[in-house]
Amino acid sequence: MAERSDEAMRAWAYLARVAEPPCAPVARLVAELGAVEAAGAIRGRLVPAGHEAVLAATEARADSDRAAADLEAASRMGARLVSPEDEEWPGWPLLALGRSGTGSRDGEPLALWVRGPHRLDEVASESVAVVGARAASSYGESVAGRLAGELCDRGWAVMSGGAFGIDGAAHRASLLAGGRTTAVLASGIDRAYPTAHARLLSEIADRGLLVSEYPPGTTAAKHRFITRNRLVAALSEAVVVVEAGRRSGAANTAAWARGLGRPVGAFPGPVTSAASVGCHRLIADDLAQLVFNTDTVVSMVRPDGGGDPGRGCERDTDGLSEDQRRVHDAIPGRGAATIDEIAYASGVGVGMVRSALAAMEVAGLVRGDGGGWRLA
Amino acid sequence: MAERSDEAMRAWAYLARVAEPPCAPVARLVAELGAVEAAGAIRGRLVPAGHEAVLAATEARADSDRAAADLEAASRMGARLVSPEDEEWPGWPLLALGRSGTGSRDGEPLALWVRGPHRLDEVASESVAVVGARAASSYGESVAGRLAGELCDRGWAVMSGGAFGIDGAAHRASLLAGGRTTAVLASGIDRAYPTAHARLLSEIADRGLLVSEYPPGTTAAKHRFITRNRLVAALSEAVVVVEAGRRSGAANTAAWARGLGRPVGAFPGPVTSAASVGCHRLIADDLAQLVFNTDTVVSMVRPDGGGDPGRGCERDTDGLSEDQRRVHDAIPGRGAATIDEIAYASGVGVGMVRSALAAMEVAGLVRGDGGGWRLA
Repeated sequence: MAERSDEAMRAWAYLARVAEPPCAPVARLVAELGAVEAAGAIRGRLVPAGHEAVLAATEARADSDRAAADLEAASRMGARLVSPEDEEWPGWPLLALGRSGTGSRDGEPLALWVRGPHRLDEVASESVAVVGARAASSYGESVAGRLAGELCDRGWAVMSGGAFGIDGAAHRASLLAGGRTTAVLASGIDRAYPTAHARLLSEIADRGLLVSEYPPGTTAAKHRFITRNRLVAALSEAVVVVEAGRRSGAANTAAWARGLGRPVGAFPGPVTSAASVGCHRLIADDLAQLVFNTDTVVSMVRPDGGGDPGRGCERDTDGLSEDQRRVHDAIPGRGAATIDEIAYASGVGVGMVRSALAAMEVAGLVRGDGGGWRLA
Repeated sequence: MAERSDEAMRAWAYLARVAEPPCAPVARLVAELGAVEAAGAIRGRLVPAGHEAVLAATEARADSDRAAADLEAASRMGARLVSPEDEEWPGWPLLALGRSGTGSRDGEPLALWVRGPHRLDEVASESVAVVGARAASSYGESVAGRLAGELCDRGWAVMSGGAFGIDGAAHRASLLAGGRTTAVLASGIDRAYPTAHARLLSEIADRGLLVSEYPPGTTAAKHRFITRNRLVAALSEAVVVVEAGRRSGAANTAAWARGLGRPVGAFPGPVTSAASVGCHRLIADDLAQLVFNTDTVVSMVRPDGGGDPGRGCERDTDGLSEDQRRVHDAIPGRGAATIDEIAYASGVGVGMVRSALAAMEVAGLVRGDGGGWRLA
């Protein structure tokens, strides 16, 4: 963050609060003008032609500039605001949101408030989301805990929503395994919701990551759980549902994941258990794959047999320049990306992307063909 | 059976024992010569050119003619030998076996020993097979029992293999519901296997059906369970697996069903239960659909929404002649059949099939188009 000017940081903080996220008109304005000028235009109520929708979307909050206070509150609790200008911005995982964007609820976040000792981009590229019913059974909590613990043992990070039931069991088991776990919140990262999870969330902030699209002080609200779910899906390599009732937020997260092209798995349970009805329905309706242990989950995330995240891959990239590393990190774990996509996701210029790819191809780290560039 | 001559009955009984079924060479000889002449040829060790394989297949038993004794033993216990010449021969369901025939283990049975108060062809066209692990859990037995009872309540018949565990639970619940249940045995219908199921099998003989390809007195043997499984699959509209361990006979029955084009369902269970591993594998490998209650099973059997077997359909056919009824019964519940197929399955001549179809089309019972004939 040191690279950014205070002015830019305040602009991002202002923009993160000035409209209820995700807000497509504001995102488009930022894409066109940059954060500082966009913030100035909104404050001054004077936007370029074609961007008039920004004025309505920001009318309520434009005059109340709490950017400095938000940044200071975050700083006091050891948190940071991560924007697309930061190295740890998970550009590639979030790109899918921007692509499917219709402007309502599915856009990329402008910036993310983050609290915890890990880099968000690294965690996102190695995360499996383990989500499920708040009203979980002891069977479900035990399955979620075992899965999360084993995933952590194998080098994966575990993403969830910090809620009661399955989410909590997944976070707790990850911490117990000494693994990385991320809670994406529907409130500000300074708010403990549910309050009974205050201590758990505080441990996650110390040893994992708390992530929120909402500025400090924001309270959880019903619509925020839905928009939060899209981030759980986008910031994970795959979503696994462990228990879900007939109507379940987990099914919503699964729907986001499908829309973003992420694999979705569901654990079965006794057909006599109401807490498994949603999982069985997802599988029977072909909306999720049946998974029944950690191996089947990993096979789903890495169908090509790529296996678990390992230190081996990282060693190979130790000799890379900073630009090369950013280009390398911007190439998806599966599938290929074009040079333009890599440039967008990495924030590195197209010319530099080209030369970085050429050097890394010689080093055997990436392969290019007609379909784009992929990790070797 | 009164229609058949004693000579023909003895020929079928002889053929049913003279080779270990299914025996493709003997089946081909019978198809060419008819039962009486085929039996004579085998007894006389003189078969037409091209049928030499029959001699080797029947060498061990050709001279030991126990046909009269088998028929008498069957008669004493109130059983009968059902051959393709009998009205209750389930020609249509078994046709799939003949089609997929490579001559090893998957041919049609020559004839079936049957014991019980129902018509085998009627039962077969309304049966769902409920099969599973012998080493079932109480969860599995409870699921199987509930499914079988509800299927019977809705007019279905329940097919299974008479074994411990899931099979037994399905049979018992069917009897309790006052429904029709059929046990296809890997031994003669006079043998109680397993012996601890002697009373259950006797009740099934009284109120359901016992069916076996093997002559009276035959003991259960390992290879007979596999060939028996093909009949469970062929004589059912669908196969549902309730619990199966890692290596399970139920998975074998499911494989037969898939090969015959029958829908296959599997019930999930706790992932912590070894008795559900086989079911989860079947679903995860796309070899079975996940089903979780009676509704999802019926939807699988009748994906067009045809629903449960009802008396309504049967009333419509009350006014049919005997030939017309046989033609009607030979048309599959789903899909279409050609006139040749209907003639084969019904045993009614092609000319008579044509006129029966024309009359029934006028009555609104069947519909014909370029793809064949189907029930209206």
